[in-house]
Formats: sequence, structure tokens, C-alpha cells
Amino acid sequence: MKTNTQTIIPGRLPSVYGGGAGPWMETGEGGDSSVKVVVAPDSFKGSMTSREAAERIQKGIRQVFPDWTFTALPMADGGEGTVDAVLAGTGGRKIPVRVKDPLGREVEAELGYCEERKLAVIETAAASGLDLLKEGELDPVRTSTFGTGQLMKHALDLGVEEVILGLGGSATVDAGTGFFTALGVRFLDREGHLLEPAGGKLGEIEQVDLSGMNPGLKSVRLTVASDVTNPLLGPEGAVRVFGPQKGVRKDDLDRFEAGMEHYAEALVRATGRDHRSSPGSGAAGGFGFSLRSLLDVRFESGFERIANLVGLEERIREAGLVITGEGKVDHQSLYGKVPVGISRIALRHGVPVVVFAGSVEGDLTEAAGEGISVVFPIVNRPLSLGEAMDQGPQLLETAARRFARVWQLSGTG
Amino acid sequence: MKTNTQTIIPGRLPSVYGGGAGPWMETGEGGDSSVKVVVAPDSFKGSMTSREAAERIQKGIRQVFPDWTFTALPMADGGEGTVDAVLAGTGGRKIPVRVKDPLGREVEAELGYCEERKLAVIETAAASGLDLLKEGELDPVRTSTFGTGQLMKHALDLGVEEVILGLGGSATVDAGTGFFTALGVRFLDREGHLLEPAGGKLGEIEQVDLSGMNPGLKSVRLTVASDVTNPLLGPEGAVRVFGPQKGVRKDDLDRFEAGMEHYAEALVRATGRDHRSSPGSGAAGGFGFSLRSLLDVRFESGFERIANLVGLEERIREAGLVITGEGKVDHQSLYGKVPVGISRIALRHGVPVVVFAGSVEGDLTEAAGEGISVVFPIVNRPLSLGEAMDQGPQLLETAARRFARVWQLSGTG
Repeated sequence: MKTNTQTIIPGRLPSVYGGGAGPWMETGEGGDSSVKVVVAPDSFKGSMTSREAAERIQKGIRQVFPDWTFTALPMADGGEGTVDAVLAGTGGRKIPVRVKDPLGREVEAELGYCEERKLAVIETAAASGLDLLKEGELDPVRTSTFGTGQLMKHALDLGVEEVILGLGGSATVDAGTGFFTALGVRFLDREGHLLEPAGGKLGEIEQVDLSGMNPGLKSVRLTVASDVTNPLLGPEGAVRVFGPQKGVRKDDLDRFEAGMEHYAEALVRATGRDHRSSPGSGAAGGFGFSLRSLLDVRFESGFERIANLVGLEERIREAGLVITGEGKVDHQSLYGKVPVGISRIALRHGVPVVVFAGSVEGDLTEAAGEGISVVFPIVNRPLSLGEAMDQGPQLLETAARRFARVWQLSGTG
Repeated sequence: MKTNTQTIIPGRLPSVYGGGAGPWMETGEGGDSSVKVVVAPDSFKGSMTSREAAERIQKGIRQVFPDWTFTALPMADGGEGTVDAVLAGTGGRKIPVRVKDPLGREVEAELGYCEERKLAVIETAAASGLDLLKEGELDPVRTSTFGTGQLMKHALDLGVEEVILGLGGSATVDAGTGFFTALGVRFLDREGHLLEPAGGKLGEIEQVDLSGMNPGLKSVRLTVASDVTNPLLGPEGAVRVFGPQKGVRKDDLDRFEAGMEHYAEALVRATGRDHRSSPGSGAAGGFGFSLRSLLDVRFESGFERIANLVGLEERIREAGLVITGEGKVDHQSLYGKVPVGISRIALRHGVPVVVFAGSVEGDLTEAAGEGISVVFPIVNRPLSLGEAMDQGPQLLETAARRFARVWQLSGTG
């Protein structure tokens, strides 16, 4: 049991020379100076992946406490980093697959594969993501999710029984027609001609022919990891909210919305189900809507699904400290989805949570109700957002060391 | 004795609801959860005085540890805040005096007075400082230290036996001729005419008549608090290094340097002493040179003198933690003069030191050799220097609370 008694004895200054617990610790009764830490950050978007963030946090703390033990569980919310996050918990490997990028060019994309669990993890962003396009290449008329469908086909060919499909970061507004085309679905115009799947063709789709759909899609357990809850259409829908970031010009919004409406009617006719207003139908340019309509999928919060898969709660229960982090933390985002998800788990088990953040908006030293003990910004001086992102990894490592130094300091009495 | 054992018991989460040491502390053996803290920051220049900084630090920590006891000793280096810093340690009060500002306008300036110790404290900045001039009013030809001389005269009239004179922040390059004029010294041109003291007149001074100088100046113990060690003349001198910030235009530097050289020769002739190369002669636009030449002054580091006066070392010796701070901390400034001065004292007594900083340049998590345990930046997101300064007080308070939260966290095992 620690107390905050401070009886500093001259000459027994805590080791400020780096390199770990000083001799003053070994004389304490109890003597176990090691803390078990779960390190489970989200990515710091634009600066570092969740895996890199987890590494930097550990590296910074180890400089002060080499004896602490770490369980690194990089988190994700269904976007970039989802494969890494799942594999870090389940084990497995990444498999490269030749697929088409959003514009139909050949590209190599990876899927995550855990043979032991017969599990695959696919990020929509890997084959159909914004990062595959150069500046100026955004083209919502032509782009499609075909490559993501190829990854799915590859996963089914591997004989997996479960697929986690992350929807974040797509460059497309094709309502997933590319994905389903790669898996044998045929989208036809009023003359019954086969249509090339793409955002610009949705308005021409009259019939959807499901007869050739890959049967594996029906038997696999498919979990869609997404934190988007928007409906397909309207002011909160796929086109109006997310279209602009995929290249839909302001004066084209009505045209794309009309195309999406037209396609939705065709799919409702074909399936007898109406998921236009279901939460998540607006995810990934309407991809969510087609998944809900054509398959028996479970939509889950990306964080929740990953947390379950990697056994986050069990790890937290055994820990003395949980460290998470995110690029930006504010009241509006509820401290970011990953940090708040983690802290709610930690709160159940009475484990304190520290949140490292690139940017803290508002007075968030702590957030008691959510189980967050300290929000710890990583910036060290006035700087621009660009500088903060460029220097993010080093800033995070230094902040982690600083955190550990204060922790150590309070133990020097 | 604390150890870092972490045995978190469900339901015994540390109080994250603010308001101090939680119940988990009271069950520890030893049980004294209070830490004695010396809070001795420098000012955060452009953002807050050292007194405000000390208040914010205490306020932030008290939100977490209401039982901690604080000794606030705001520090200064001879510039703004010197009076506050000394009075905080010695007791006493501020006395307002009607004096002339750098341009000869009537203004009210304060001096610090401790009757018990027969001590006065005067900041050159109070009557002759840059802050008294509006933008566009900088006028090194006309400005003078006359008002500072009036403050000194007032102090002598109070019967003090010791004066601390801080040289920082002057708007003048009059070599202190204004100061000495107010105290009875006469500066004469080649025709023996009395010259108005001002930066633009130095080139005309041929004789210095000391016969009327206030005799109190000779009997008082005068300590000049300054951290400037520049000589009077040359590339490192008063004009070339500090002239521009007092309004000397680039193409006027040679003319002001020549005037200063001319005055220096006259004073060497008059006194038989040559202090042109003495360290500190270049302080406050040559004021240091005239003080050294005309009086028996002791030049001391502002920080050292104040630290002595307020009994800083005795307070630190009894403390469990020392907190200091400064606007900007980097390798070049040796972590700022105040923080490093404090940490050297604390190192002798084995007391850990935390430095709060508005800006940290370089990788300064700690500075072991100087006794600094942690450097703790106060910024919480990417922002501009102006924003950081505007929000400095709140950022500092929040950072202090954050620091305390981490301290508390490590004690929750």
C-alpha cells in the first residue's frame, strides 16, 4: 500500500539519471515495483497507427520503469489499423492479394488471416480506400469497392468461418455494388445489360440478379465493424455527409443522392427488405445498406468487436493500469470512441485509465464518470497541427516518459 | 515508504471525482498523505507574473490534494516581478511614488518597502520600463532613467539601509544618467552647460560633477540584481545587443555606440575607474556601467539575491517537493535561470523538482545533472504562441491538476 508520505532523505534523491526504479524502491516493504499495464491506443490519425502509438508509449515508460510489463493491444474502430488490432490479439498473419484499386488499377492489398480461428479481417480501406488515390484522383463517378470484394472472395477461398469487415476510409459512393459484383451479383439496367459497378451507375440499376452470388457469403459469419450510424439517404445520409470527402462536388450532391435513391428502390424490390433507414446503411458510401440488404450481417461497433476478439476485458481485469490514446480528445467525441470504450471496461474493474492525446479540447484533466483518471496531452510547446502530427511519435514517447517520471516521483518518499 | 505495488481492488478505484485524497490513502501505514511543497516559479513572460503562476499551480494541485501545504515564493531575475518576489519572502508593502516615465511624463510607480529590514526594492522597469511606452513611443534619443532615480531618492528618504535594484526591462540607453541626475549628479557639455539626461545626449558629455550627489547613495548597501553580464561597448555591448529592443534603428547603432564610448571616456576621467569591460556594465542601456563606476555596488544574479533574501534554501530543505516554472525552457537557457537555480539548491537537499513550462524545446523530460526531475509542458493541443500566452494561467492550472492526478494515480495501489 502506498501513501503519499514525503520524507526525502538527503542523498536519496530518486534516480533522475534515467534507467529505472532507483534503489529507494527496493527498500520498501512489499517490494514489487512492477506494474502490469495494458496499452491499448487508437491510431493518432494523420500521425501514427495504433501499433506505432502502442510501441511509443511502452518505449517512453520503459526508459523510467524497465521492470513494468506491458500487454500491447492496439485498437481500431473499423478503419485503418483494424487488421493490425485484431491480429495483435488473435495471432495470425497478413496475406497480400492482387486486387483492383478504387479506379480499377492493379494493386496489392492485404487481408488479415488467423488460421487457428478460421478468421479473416478485411479493411475496406485496403483495396478501396482514400489513401490509394493521389490528390486529384478522387472520382466518385468511377470509383468502386470491387477490390474489397476480391479480398472477400480470397478469404472465402481460404475456408474461413468468420470475417470481420471494417468499413472505414473508403473512397467510394458505389453502395458496395463493386464488392458484390466481385462476388457474383449482377447489376442490370432497364434493358437487362450488365452494368459496370461504380458510383455513377447507381441511377441506371433496375434489376439485381443474385443468382450467381458466392454461396460462401451466406454461410460465413460476417461482422461489419463500423462506428458510422448514419442512414442511407437524406441530410444525414451517405451522399450528403460523406460524399464530399470522397470527391462529390457540391453541385453534384443532388445527382448522386438521386442515383442512390434509385438504386435503393431497386434493391428493396429485389430483396423485399427495406434497410434505407437502418443505422449504418450510410457507411462507406452506401456499402452498409447493401450489406444489410443482401446478407445476414451483424453490425457492431468496430471497437466492441475488436475488444471482444482480443480479450480486452480479461487483460484489463488483470492489469494495474490501462493506457489508451487518440489524436484528438474532446467532449463532443466523448473522448474518442476507443478511449471511452476502454475506460468503461476499466471502470467496471476499478483499474485507472490514462489517455494520451495529441489535442485536448476543453478542460479535460480527467473524466471521472467515464473512468478516465487523467487526460495527458503530448504536445510540449506552441506548434501547428501539422508539426504536432509530424512529430507525433516522438512527442508521444516523450509524454509517456514524462508520465512515468511523475509516477516515479510520487513514489520517492 | 511507498512502493509501486499495484493491487487494484475492484470498487476501490481512486477518487476520480475530484476533491482530494481518497479513502485508499488513509489505510496506508504511515498515513501522512500531505506533501510540503515549495512553489517558486519565475514569471511566464507575456502571459503571467510569477505570483499569478504560483497561485495557479497551487490552485490546480489543491483540486486533487486539498491537504498539501504550500509555501509560495514567486521568483524573479531582477526584471518584472522582483518587488513581488522579495516582498513575498520578507514581508512589507508597495509604496506608490509620483515619478517621471521614460519620456518625462508624470506616472505613478511603486517601490517595495520592508520597514522591519530597512530594505527597499526597486525595479528599473517600474519607472523606466518598456511597458510604460505605447507602440511607436520607443525613443532612445529622449528616454531616460530619471524616474528610477526618483524612486531611489524616495527609498533613501525612507531611511532604508539596503536597496535591491533590479535592472531588467528598461526602455533606455541613457547609461543611467537620468538616474544619477535625479540624485544630484550633473552631466555637463564642453561649455560647462548642464545637459538634460537622455540617450541622445551621451555624446555631448565632457564633465561629470559628483559634488552634489545624494550622500545616501554612498552609505546604503546597494545590490544590483541583474542577469545580464554584457560589457558596455562593442558587439556584445549595451547598444548593439540591447539597443534595438529599446528602439535604436539599425542605421543609428554606430551613432549610439559612439555616444556611449564618448560618455564612458568622460566617466573614466571623472572617477579614475574603468568599468567599460566589467560584466554587467552593458545592463539596462549602460546603467550598469554608471552604477559600477560611481558607486560601491554589488552586482549579483537577480535570482541568487532574491533566493537569499526570501530564505529559499531553508524552505526547500524542509520540503518534499519543489515546483518551479517558466515561459520557455530549453537547453540554451539552461532551463531558464530561475528553474536551474532552484534545482541546484534542491539537488543539494535531495528534494525533487518539477518544472512547468509554457514551451519546452528539445527532449527535456528531465535534466538529471541539474536536479530537475520532470519538465512538464502546460500546453494541451496544437496552438499558436499567442493563444498559449493568452490562455497561460488556465493552462498552467490545468497542467498542475494533471500533474497531481498522475501523482495520485501512482499512489492507488
